[in-house]
Amino acid sequence: MRIAVIGVGLIGGSIALAARQRLGAEVIAWDADPAALEEALSLGAIDRAAPSLQDAVHGAEVAFVAVPVGALPDTLADVLKAAPADCAVTDVGSTKRAIVAGQADQRFVGGHPLAGAETAGVAHARVDLFEGSTWYLTPTPRSSGLLYERLYRLLGALGARPEAIDPETHDATLALVSHLPHVLANALVTRAFDELEAGAAPLPASGPSFRDATRVAGAPSAIWTDIYMSNRDALVAQLDALLQHLQTVRGRLADADAAAITAWNEAAAGYRRRLMEDEVTGQELVELRAAVPNRPGVVAELALELGRAGVNIADLALHPAPDMSEGVVALWLPGPDAAGQAQEIIEKLGHPVFRP
Amino acid sequence: MRIAVIGVGLIGGSIALAARQRLGAEVIAWDADPAALEEALSLGAIDRAAPSLQDAVHGAEVAFVAVPVGALPDTLADVLKAAPADCAVTDVGSTKRAIVAGQADQRFVGGHPLAGAETAGVAHARVDLFEGSTWYLTPTPRSSGLLYERLYRLLGALGARPEAIDPETHDATLALVSHLPHVLANALVTRAFDELEAGAAPLPASGPSFRDATRVAGAPSAIWTDIYMSNRDALVAQLDALLQHLQTVRGRLADADAAAITAWNEAAAGYRRRLMEDEVTGQELVELRAAVPNRPGVVAELALELGRAGVNIADLALHPAPDMSEGVVALWLPGPDAAGQAQEIIEKLGHPVFRP
Repeated sequence: MRIAVIGVGLIGGSIALAARQRLGAEVIAWDADPAALEEALSLGAIDRAAPSLQDAVHGAEVAFVAVPVGALPDTLADVLKAAPADCAVTDVGSTKRAIVAGQADQRFVGGHPLAGAETAGVAHARVDLFEGSTWYLTPTPRSSGLLYERLYRLLGALGARPEAIDPETHDATLALVSHLPHVLANALVTRAFDELEAGAAPLPASGPSFRDATRVAGAPSAIWTDIYMSNRDALVAQLDALLQHLQTVRGRLADADAAAITAWNEAAAGYRRRLMEDEVTGQELVELRAAVPNRPGVVAELALELGRAGVNIADLALHPAPDMSEGVVALWLPGPDAAGQAQEIIEKLGHPVFRP
Repeated sequence: MRIAVIGVGLIGGSIALAARQRLGAEVIAWDADPAALEEALSLGAIDRAAPSLQDAVHGAEVAFVAVPVGALPDTLADVLKAAPADCAVTDVGSTKRAIVAGQADQRFVGGHPLAGAETAGVAHARVDLFEGSTWYLTPTPRSSGLLYERLYRLLGALGARPEAIDPETHDATLALVSHLPHVLANALVTRAFDELEAGAAPLPASGPSFRDATRVAGAPSAIWTDIYMSNRDALVAQLDALLQHLQTVRGRLADADAAAITAWNEAAAGYRRRLMEDEVTGQELVELRAAVPNRPGVVAELALELGRAGVNIADLALHPAPDMSEGVVALWLPGPDAAGQAQEIIEKLGHPVFRP
C-alpha cells in the first residue's frame, strides 16, 4: 500500500511510522518545511521525501493531510487536485465543520485523532501514538463508501479506534471538553496577573487548585489560534452557556443562598464521579489519596511497588506542601479491584491512604 | 507550655502533634465529636481529652480554635469567655474578614495555615503538616502585641512561616487562587453533564485539559459551603472580573479577531511562566515533558532514577493516552540545574524529553 503524508509533524510523522512498521506500507511525504522532511527521513519515519506535494500524492491509495488547521483548506485543495481518482484523502484537524462543509469531493473524509496534543514535531513521533485512542471520522453522504472503508480499516491497523461522528457534534464536544478549558485557564492566569499588576500582595505558594486550573494556559498559538478561529461559534456557544451558569452561581453567592450553593456543589461532586467513570475506555476510575513525605524516591517507591504488583496507574497528581517537604499523592486506578490492591500496597509502605 | 486545641480534625490534630513532639507542650483538647477526641488521644496527638471546652482552655497559654468556618463564631466566643486573661487565642479558618471584624478581644489574632485542605480527620494528622508553609496571621490594632509575639513564635516552632496580612487582602487573594478555581471546576462538570443529559454524544476519553480543569470539582460541602458563604463578596468580585474578561474574549472570538486572540494567548503563556516562577518558595520551576510507554513501572523507574540522583520533583502529572498504553509525563523541577540533570537521566532511560 502506498500512503502519502503531507505535513510531517508529530501526527503526520506518527502516521508514517505506524504505516511503515505495522503495515509495511510505502510512505511518501512532503512538508512545506524541508528541514522537517529531512528529519522525518533520517528518523526512518518515511520511505521517501517527495520534491513536491504533487509528487508525494502521485499513485497514493490514501493521503493524510496533517497540517495546521489554518493551512488546511489550501493544502487539501492541492492534494485533491493531484491525487488519483481512487485515493482516499483525509485530514487530522482539531475542528471539523469548516473543512467538511468546504469539500464536496467524494474521496475526502475528515478525520481527527485524539492524540498527541502535548507535543510537537516529528522528533516526538511514535509508532504507537494512536494505539487504542479514538480517531474521529466525519464521512458525509458524499463520501465514497469504498474509500471510507479503506480508510477505516487502515486506521484500525494503525492501532486507533475509528469512530464516525458528525462534524457539528464533534466540534461542540471538543469546544466543551478541550477548547473551553483552555480559555478558562488563560482567563485565570490573566486575572491573577492583573491582580499582581494592580498591586495586590504576592500570591502565596498557591494550592493545587490554581495550578491544575491553569496547567494548559498559553498553549502554542501556532496551533491554538487556528482552533479557536475555526471553532469560534461552537466555542462561543459553550462559553455563553458557561457564562449563564456562572451568573446563576453568582446570584446564589450574592444572595447568600447556602442551601442552593450546597446543592450545586453536591451535584458537581456527583457529576464528576460519573464523568470520571465514563472516561478512559469506560473503566470506572477509583481515586485514592496517600499522604507521603516528599523526599526523592518516595513517589518512585510507591509507583514501583504498584508496578511490581501489575497495578497500572491511570493518572496521578502530586500536591506538594509549599516547601516540598511532603505532599499528597492522588492516584486514579482502573476499577475497584486495582484500587483495593493499590491501597494495601501503599499502606504497607507506611503511607496513610484515604478515599476522597 | 500549655496549649488548648478546640476541634481535632486534620489541622487541630496536626497542631497538637507538632506542639507535643516539637515543643514538649502539654496539649489539652476538646471536640464536639467525642469519637474524634478519643481517636486523637489514642493516636497520641493530645495529652488529655477535656470533658468540656471550658475545661480544655483552663490555664492555657495559647488556644487554637480549629473548627469549620460556620461553627467558628460561636465556638470562638465560648473560648474567649473561658480562656485566661493572658491566653493568646487564634483560629484556622479559610476566610478571615468576618471572624476578625466580629472580635474586639485583645487576646484574639485570626490565622489561616495554607496546608492540609486535601485531607480530613485526625487520622491524617502529621507532625510536619505545617513545615515551611505560609501561616497567615491577621493581627489588628486591637491585638495584644505580647500575645501576638507568643503566637508568632509558637507557629515558627511548629515549622510554619507566619506571615501577617490584612483580612481583606487575605480573602481577596484566596478568592482568586482557591475559591474561584473551585467554582470554575464545578461549573465545567455541571455543563458537561448538562450536555450529556441533553443527548449529546458520549464525551470522548477526554484529554488532560478537562480532567485538570475539573479535578477539584465537588470538594466537601461541609467545608466549602462555609467558605463560599463567608467570602461571597470577595468571590463575587473575582467572579465579576473574570466574567468581564471572558466577555472580552467572547467578543474577540465572535469577531474572529485572530490577532487579538493570539496576543491574549501569548500573554497568558507569559503570565503562567511568571506565576509558576514566583510559586513555591520563589524557586523557578522548570517544566520538562517525557513521552513514555504507560506500562506499570515506567513512572516508577523514572522517579526512582531521579530520586537516586537526589533530584526532587516539585510536581508531576501523567497524561495517559485513552487506552493508558502510553503517555506524557510532565515534571516540574526546582531550577534549571535540577531540570538539566533530570533531562539527562530521563533521556538515558530512553524516553524523549522536551521543554514545552
